[in-house]
Amino acid sequence: MISHDTIVALATPSGAGAIAVIRISGKDAITIAGQVFQSVSGKDITKQKTHTLHLGHVVDDNKVIDQVLLSLFKGTNSYTGEPTVEISCHGSTYIQQQIIQLLLRKGCRMAQPGEFTLRSFLNGKMDLSQAEAVADLIASDNEASHQIAMQQMRGGFSNEIAKLREELLNFASLIELELDFAEEDVEFADRTQFHDLLNRIEFVLKRLIDSFAVGNVIKNGIPVAIVGEPNVGKSTLLNALLNEERAIVSDIAGTTRDTIEDELVIDGIGFRFIDTAGIRDTQDVVESIGIKKTFEKMEQAQVVVYLFDSSEYKTLGGQLQTEIQKIRNQFPLKPLVIIGNKADKLTATEAAELKALIPEILLLSAKEKLGVEDLKAQLLSFVNTGALRNNETIVTNTRHYDSLLKALEEIQKVQWGLQSGISSDLMAIDIRQALYYFGEITGQVTNDELLGNIFANFCIGK
Amino acid sequence: MISHDTIVALATPSGAGAIAVIRISGKDAITIAGQVFQSVSGKDITKQKTHTLHLGHVVDDNKVIDQVLLSLFKGTNSYTGEPTVEISCHGSTYIQQQIIQLLLRKGCRMAQPGEFTLRSFLNGKMDLSQAEAVADLIASDNEASHQIAMQQMRGGFSNEIAKLREELLNFASLIELELDFAEEDVEFADRTQFHDLLNRIEFVLKRLIDSFAVGNVIKNGIPVAIVGEPNVGKSTLLNALLNEERAIVSDIAGTTRDTIEDELVIDGIGFRFIDTAGIRDTQDVVESIGIKKTFEKMEQAQVVVYLFDSSEYKTLGGQLQTEIQKIRNQFPLKPLVIIGNKADKLTATEAAELKALIPEILLLSAKEKLGVEDLKAQLLSFVNTGALRNNETIVTNTRHYDSLLKALEEIQKVQWGLQSGISSDLMAIDIRQALYYFGEITGQVTNDELLGNIFANFCIGK
Repeated sequence: MISHDTIVALATPSGAGAIAVIRISGKDAITIAGQVFQSVSGKDITKQKTHTLHLGHVVDDNKVIDQVLLSLFKGTNSYTGEPTVEISCHGSTYIQQQIIQLLLRKGCRMAQPGEFTLRSFLNGKMDLSQAEAVADLIASDNEASHQIAMQQMRGGFSNEIAKLREELLNFASLIELELDFAEEDVEFADRTQFHDLLNRIEFVLKRLIDSFAVGNVIKNGIPVAIVGEPNVGKSTLLNALLNEERAIVSDIAGTTRDTIEDELVIDGIGFRFIDTAGIRDTQDVVESIGIKKTFEKMEQAQVVVYLFDSSEYKTLGGQLQTEIQKIRNQFPLKPLVIIGNKADKLTATEAAELKALIPEILLLSAKEKLGVEDLKAQLLSFVNTGALRNNETIVTNTRHYDSLLKALEEIQKVQWGLQSGISSDLMAIDIRQALYYFGEITGQVTNDELLGNIFANFCIGK
Repeated sequence: MISHDTIVALATPSGAGAIAVIRISGKDAITIAGQVFQSVSGKDITKQKTHTLHLGHVVDDNKVIDQVLLSLFKGTNSYTGEPTVEISCHGSTYIQQQIIQLLLRKGCRMAQPGEFTLRSFLNGKMDLSQAEAVADLIASDNEASHQIAMQQMRGGFSNEIAKLREELLNFASLIELELDFAEEDVEFADRTQFHDLLNRIEFVLKRLIDSFAVGNVIKNGIPVAIVGEPNVGKSTLLNALLNEERAIVSDIAGTTRDTIEDELVIDGIGFRFIDTAGIRDTQDVVESIGIKKTFEKMEQAQVVVYLFDSSEYKTLGGQLQTEIQKIRNQFPLKPLVIIGNKADKLTATEAAELKALIPEILLLSAKEKLGVEDLKAQLLSFVNTGALRNNETIVTNTRHYDSLLKALEEIQKVQWGLQSGISSDLMAIDIRQALYYFGEITGQVTNDELLGNIFANFCIGK
């Protein structure tokens, strides 16, 4: 898979801006750049030190394409571990294209998505899980997902896996050594210590596997279904939450045309609010389709928020409790927040009456921004941010999750084998298999197809 | 207008990409960057050499925001002429925002549009017309506009103006010297040489002023109105032109909803094709409104292309010539290209017949890509690319054009004064005024309002 040709790509977002950066990497990167770059001071860039910046012009024969700033990375002192040049040019797309086309004519080829990072991995600059974290980092759009990606990129996850792998490898060697002396019936590997190690590995693997639920939710945002009739104040509530958080509201179209999702970041955790209709009893066919959809959306959500106009509770009467009970029956385990909005219209007596009726109710006025803090606290309480706050390793990658599950399965086989006293040679097979799955995560075990799949999801230029 | 505070902005296009560049400039740029940057090798960036690159982390207290590459420009060795730092971070918008917000907290302020370039001008790194060329360069989207902007940014235009200004300034000094010796009636300034100089200046000014017509057209693309009924093959024709040029088709909505413009680059010159309806005689009110619109669009265009289905010329009969004559009568001076499309359907006899009927006709088959080269040549012949090919200075900026017109007016006053022998003191006033307008172009004469207007049109980060 390693190729030594010189690749080029635009590394900054496409479109016009003040500047754009074109990245070149490979054994001929500096020589090729030197052919098209004329330093203002007449310097020969192939003779300059690594990590230096040079002002000059990109020139095609005698035609000046742009005045640029060239960054030089020599030897293995670069992101990719290969000679690398970055050209910072004016941000016109025409200029970007001209420079890239010139470099292609001079012998570069267009980089594949993620190829710079792939080379970084192949050249031992980072392991596979770190390389994957680069893509996550670029995609991160809130504090939590950023923090998890950053920790993984800095090797937190790899270190944890590598430590376990090394300990297991030691035992594997000892057990395999026993096989060589099979006839003498010796035990090089202390069975008690081995038993302890397996328990420790099992514990860590289970913790990592468990972290995937929260990790996945943090990475993609926590889906919250808001159940509520029109005009109960959903938009006002979202805006109230937003104003305090100064986050960005984005209206992105959902999977179905009629579902609009609002994204919201509370205390660094992303929430995706899914608007749904109410679920009142109806004879109407069209409306009962709506109710079916509402239940489907609640199914997909991790948290259900039931929003109603508290000033109308007397009109609603028993219907209110019927609806709430209906949701509870359908999703007994799903966290449910019951919000009585427009509470500023209630008298103290009415508020007390409502609280007596529905004890867990959160009375709130989105318009007056009363009670919004309580709602935020309640939403956050559903996220297990403990691990996040304690800087524990959190798994967010499905590939890692799969390998961890498989590793756990093998470890449990070994545990069972140890208990039932099976022969060392059979146990050695399971240990090797567990080691294989550990290696898959960090990239010690790999193949072209796996790498292809991973890096195809990267953007070009990274 | 000069401010010495430290400014920060995103210099790359907004949105996600592999990397993003954040630019900081001002007297405290390096100190502030030093507060948030931790080099991987523990280096203190304030003590490093200019034009060096440093790998490290942007850190907010103990929280790592990103692994970045930092470019260092010390003293006046930078784009702005001030200490400058560029931070190349991962392209997540979340990370970009976090770093910029951190820098703002540490004492930077957000840069105004064009403020980096404004500082470059105020610090004497470039003159005003060069600064304006930076924005043109970023906006350039074809070879011609790129070449003009590049020439201007490299000082071609300024040099031409500065040379004239200097010569004129010499004479101005001599003539003003005469005023000091007014009673002695001496002539320090040789009137014949002065006469020659004024003629030379007038000639150059006129050439520059004339170049504005072509310059403006090149900068914005040449508007071409295509008059033709539906189904005569307009889209096929545009695609045929495009395929050969491998240019980018962009459908941008015009000023009115019903006008779609196609942009096309032929030989480095941009053309904007404006689609219009036919102009056949009609009694229908709605249709006659359409015809009025068609004439309006032809008015705005620099070239009119009349496209019809040549295989139908017999059916059309006299109507064809009536329509063509109508266009000629309305716009006697506007270049008109008459295209008989679908010429592959004609027999040789029919083609000859049609040529006899309309001698200037261009018979063409967009579908079979026959005659497309001829059309390209004809379109290009309407653009005076001579100046462009000869690398002459071309004026594209309305502000420059205005100043040149005013300077010419003053020069002509001086010429008139010289001929009619008016007194040196009156002549000196006109010369000073001409010098003033020259100075306005390059920025030797300036004021806050003028600078405000110019740089407000820049993007942020440049």
